[in-house]
Amino acid sequence: MAGTIAPKVVKLGGSVVTVKEKPRTPDLTVIGRLAGEIKQAEIDSLIIIHGGGSYGHPYAEEYGITEGYKSQGQLIGFSKTRQAMMALNKLIVDALVRNNIAAVSVQPSAFIHTKKGRISEFNPSLIKGMLKMNLVPLLYGDAVLDEAIGFSILSGDQLTAKLAVELKAEQIIFGVDVDGLYTEDPKLNPDASLIEEIKLNELRQSMKKIGRAGTIDVTRGMFGKILEIIPAVEAGIRIKIINAKKANRLYRALRNEKVKGTEIEQR
Amino acid sequence: MAGTIAPKVVKLGGSVVTVKEKPRTPDLTVIGRLAGEIKQAEIDSLIIIHGGGSYGHPYAEEYGITEGYKSQGQLIGFSKTRQAMMALNKLIVDALVRNNIAAVSVQPSAFIHTKKGRISEFNPSLIKGMLKMNLVPLLYGDAVLDEAIGFSILSGDQLTAKLAVELKAEQIIFGVDVDGLYTEDPKLNPDASLIEEIKLNELRQSMKKIGRAGTIDVTRGMFGKILEIIPAVEAGIRIKIINAKKANRLYRALRNEKVKGTEIEQR
Repeated sequence: MAGTIAPKVVKLGGSVVTVKEKPRTPDLTVIGRLAGEIKQAEIDSLIIIHGGGSYGHPYAEEYGITEGYKSQGQLIGFSKTRQAMMALNKLIVDALVRNNIAAVSVQPSAFIHTKKGRISEFNPSLIKGMLKMNLVPLLYGDAVLDEAIGFSILSGDQLTAKLAVELKAEQIIFGVDVDGLYTEDPKLNPDASLIEEIKLNELRQSMKKIGRAGTIDVTRGMFGKILEIIPAVEAGIRIKIINAKKANRLYRALRNEKVKGTEIEQR
Repeated sequence: MAGTIAPKVVKLGGSVVTVKEKPRTPDLTVIGRLAGEIKQAEIDSLIIIHGGGSYGHPYAEEYGITEGYKSQGQLIGFSKTRQAMMALNKLIVDALVRNNIAAVSVQPSAFIHTKKGRISEFNPSLIKGMLKMNLVPLLYGDAVLDEAIGFSILSGDQLTAKLAVELKAEQIIFGVDVDGLYTEDPKLNPDASLIEEIKLNELRQSMKKIGRAGTIDVTRGMFGKILEIIPAVEAGIRIKIINAKKANRLYRALRNEKVKGTEIEQR
């Protein structure tokens, strides 16, 4: 029975499922392909989380949602951010349903609160119930109520790590738009090389070196992502970062086949 | 501050916001007009719930979602029912946001479980938090997990009464596609007359007479609706049933102005 199997957790970055430069533009080709790969991989127990990309971020930024409540004028931006995230979510769930996957959209803000941007209230019983029924819960980064600052943004990465730890996930696969972690920013330095494997203590060491000569590129949001990932690695969950913009990478990662990317291990 | 004001709760029937005969067809004219009336009424503390109409019902029926889990084949129907409800919900929230109302979609199935179709787990703290922030929570009838039968349908009417009681609402306005409660079915009998006011004990008496000569028409779903309403009436909440397909009825009801319809009172 699916409920007794440790789930796999897939995070699809906003830059994977949307066209980052164009406000509210989905990458329907990639979404459709990924839905097919997920179907083909036939995973018994699976949770999917996606980011905001060009859907949630422009509104969140325009109305300063991350910084919390300051004026009534932001409230309509809080609405718009959520509506945008749900619109993107609908496209992804629809693509999965077309592939005959019983994907179930679960709105994070309907059951998660934060406190200063960190999850403070979270009841995983519903998600557990869905996994038990062989449903595939699909969540996303969302604009949520915040006990301390009124509202905030709950990132897909924070949510992914929290869900994985709470549900004792077997593995997290982070689908991003680069091949994995690099020694330097591969978009700026052609000599940057992909790190295929890294242990938790090496990762921690690299994080401390930020601003000095590091051994890992932690630019372009990678720093924040890695900070969120660490508690999951500490909990013994295997992490793989792959390029989900490229065909078959997600499929191979889900099937535990050899695939280009970065593996993060506890020790 | 809005959070200290007893909220008004508006339920918009599925037959109001959709074209009942055509699968997945919204009544955008009515939705747009109602959003305008809600804006114009300037209510400080407001919750809106809507039904499924031609969105949720066809899938729920096709896959037997109300009867609970029987086979894996239903799971895709569970997904489809939820997706359809979210699609309808999006149209309504978008219409409110266009009217500069900070409406916030809240997915019932993300925080409510049922047991044999009745709400068994329900934490209203998030909705309270939204009201406190002057947001307008918007919920809907939904396909939810059920502790006893796997999954079920949580009707918008059940949810409305539960929310109203838990949040100590001042009033519930039920927007339907007839003018209120009648002595007989107005669509079958031209002599049927509208009941303008009814007390709880009279209502209870009429319910017992079903199948015999009653004094109230309880056909076409009205019986189920009234059964759900009774706990709210018992809690002292004023109930008004109005025809939301007709212009200005909702506005007038929200403003406590004289309006055609049926008022249900505790005593």
